[in-house]
Amino acid sequence: MSGHTTLGPGGEFDRIRRILSSLGANARGIGDDAALVDIPVGHKLVASTDSSVEGVHFRRDWMTFEEIGYRATAAALSDIAAMGAAPLGVLLAIALPESDLDSLDSLVRGCGEAAKVSGTAVIGGDLSGSPTLTIGVTVLGSAVRPISRNGAAAGDRIYMTGKLGGSGLGLAAMQRGEAPPAGAREKFVRPIPRIPEAAWLADRGATACIDISDGIVGDLGHIALASGVNLLVDIERIPLFPGAASDTALSSGEEYELCVTAPQDLDVEGFRSAFSLQLTLIGYVESSTSPGVIFRKSGAQVRASGSFTHFTK
Amino acid sequence: MSGHTTLGPGGEFDRIRRILSSLGANARGIGDDAALVDIPVGHKLVASTDSSVEGVHFRRDWMTFEEIGYRATAAALSDIAAMGAAPLGVLLAIALPESDLDSLDSLVRGCGEAAKVSGTAVIGGDLSGSPTLTIGVTVLGSAVRPISRNGAAAGDRIYMTGKLGGSGLGLAAMQRGEAPPAGAREKFVRPIPRIPEAAWLADRGATACIDISDGIVGDLGHIALASGVNLLVDIERIPLFPGAASDTALSSGEEYELCVTAPQDLDVEGFRSAFSLQLTLIGYVESSTSPGVIFRKSGAQVRASGSFTHFTK
Repeated sequence: MSGHTTLGPGGEFDRIRRILSSLGANARGIGDDAALVDIPVGHKLVASTDSSVEGVHFRRDWMTFEEIGYRATAAALSDIAAMGAAPLGVLLAIALPESDLDSLDSLVRGCGEAAKVSGTAVIGGDLSGSPTLTIGVTVLGSAVRPISRNGAAAGDRIYMTGKLGGSGLGLAAMQRGEAPPAGAREKFVRPIPRIPEAAWLADRGATACIDISDGIVGDLGHIALASGVNLLVDIERIPLFPGAASDTALSSGEEYELCVTAPQDLDVEGFRSAFSLQLTLIGYVESSTSPGVIFRKSGAQVRASGSFTHFTK
Repeated sequence: MSGHTTLGPGGEFDRIRRILSSLGANARGIGDDAALVDIPVGHKLVASTDSSVEGVHFRRDWMTFEEIGYRATAAALSDIAAMGAAPLGVLLAIALPESDLDSLDSLVRGCGEAAKVSGTAVIGGDLSGSPTLTIGVTVLGSAVRPISRNGAAAGDRIYMTGKLGGSGLGLAAMQRGEAPPAGAREKFVRPIPRIPEAAWLADRGATACIDISDGIVGDLGHIALASGVNLLVDIERIPLFPGAASDTALSSGEEYELCVTAPQDLDVEGFRSAFSLQLTLIGYVESSTSPGVIFRKSGAQVRASGSFTHFTK
């Protein structure tokens, strides 16, 4: 407690502002109590906030500061993708120990890079001291018709983008102190928010969408519960990241691939050629009086449940 | 590091959601990857983010958890007030030790209360574990013509709302382990974002506005620098909180009163009768080739400089 302290993106934000200025086009409109954003007429504002905490979401011996900033920002952008929305700007709330100040430039550069990858920019923020390095990321976006979790209907197909388990494979290796297999570290450290992919899916009638952040079991559970339906998923259909076991993949969070439901067959070849990414039919939606997710393997039904949560109580 | 972790307002936000549901009207629209907000046609979105960190912005032996949540949220709302904007919703990113989980209800209740005081609600958020209790608050608002910091022009008057130094007085007493004087603790613990007051001032032509969060010296400096003008302030005119010394008041941050510039005399009596709060002319704006804030006392000019920042480097 060093006496009097500040709140708000005032003087203390000058440093972030200076760093962002050095990034050029990645920073704009910063320099007031709040950021200003134009929302396209007819669009709804879509907003999401997310924290990355050292020792909980990342370890500094696994990643550079730039990667820490990138990953925290990409994770927040993925929530906007899951709504089928286009990002309009990123707000950073960085809290860090004074001894990490020399790394702030790298951290913010990583945040700006993730914003740029998704076609947006850091537009405001806040810097404060803290014993624990914490990156709070709020993403603002907009969409004419955001896809929510509650639109899945009986008869819909269930699709997912990409492959599952790469992030979990990378994490497990780093936890064991080993070098992750090729591509797996990249998947953990530099996830790609599926922004244009989600817009493509929204345009083709996706009825519900979620990004895989807690693990596919729990995440599909959110859709099932919100929509009041059963999701039947054939485990064998889920594309696995090379080297990932099926069980690992099912429980792997922070994958940031999308799961969507859609009333008709989607053009998986069109998707692949547009994004160089696979889109796979993994199951379908049934009506239910007791909503949930049913995973099937070799014909047998296994009702899966539970995903990682920070606190068990 | 408890193995795999989540990001995003998914499963882990269920607890916040449940708490907010119990608050009734203070929570709405929560339950998806992101919050949805309608921006009134012709309005600009105004967004600000802010963190309150234990040991930096507050100490738990000074305040209840409800007060910690209230204060963190009020501080963020004050940035929206400083833009002359109306709040549309609050996003919470709460990171806390598992041992504090029993206090989460109180914390979120305080956040919801501050939102309600400003006529808005908590509309989304994120919960995660952390060794350090951290409350990230993002406020979304809108305004037709936001007041920025760069509109002050030569000849403008400078006004401030309320009295200065109460928060500093409360803080100083708590730091000494003493009971703060009457009203001073309240001013520190339960600041009131000046939302309707700012709208009143904006309607009457305020050209620049800032909330006093870093201390009036530094905060006015932001206006001076952004507007390219000199601000001349008569220290004797600044209304002091009962018992606050002038020097204490000048360096007191987290007061959350507003400073505005305006091209003509404002109806201070009308303001007082509308809000039961004083509005005081404290100085005027001069053109300058070397922008800054000049404080005058007993006729003598003192160029004041510097406000508290978290880091000196």
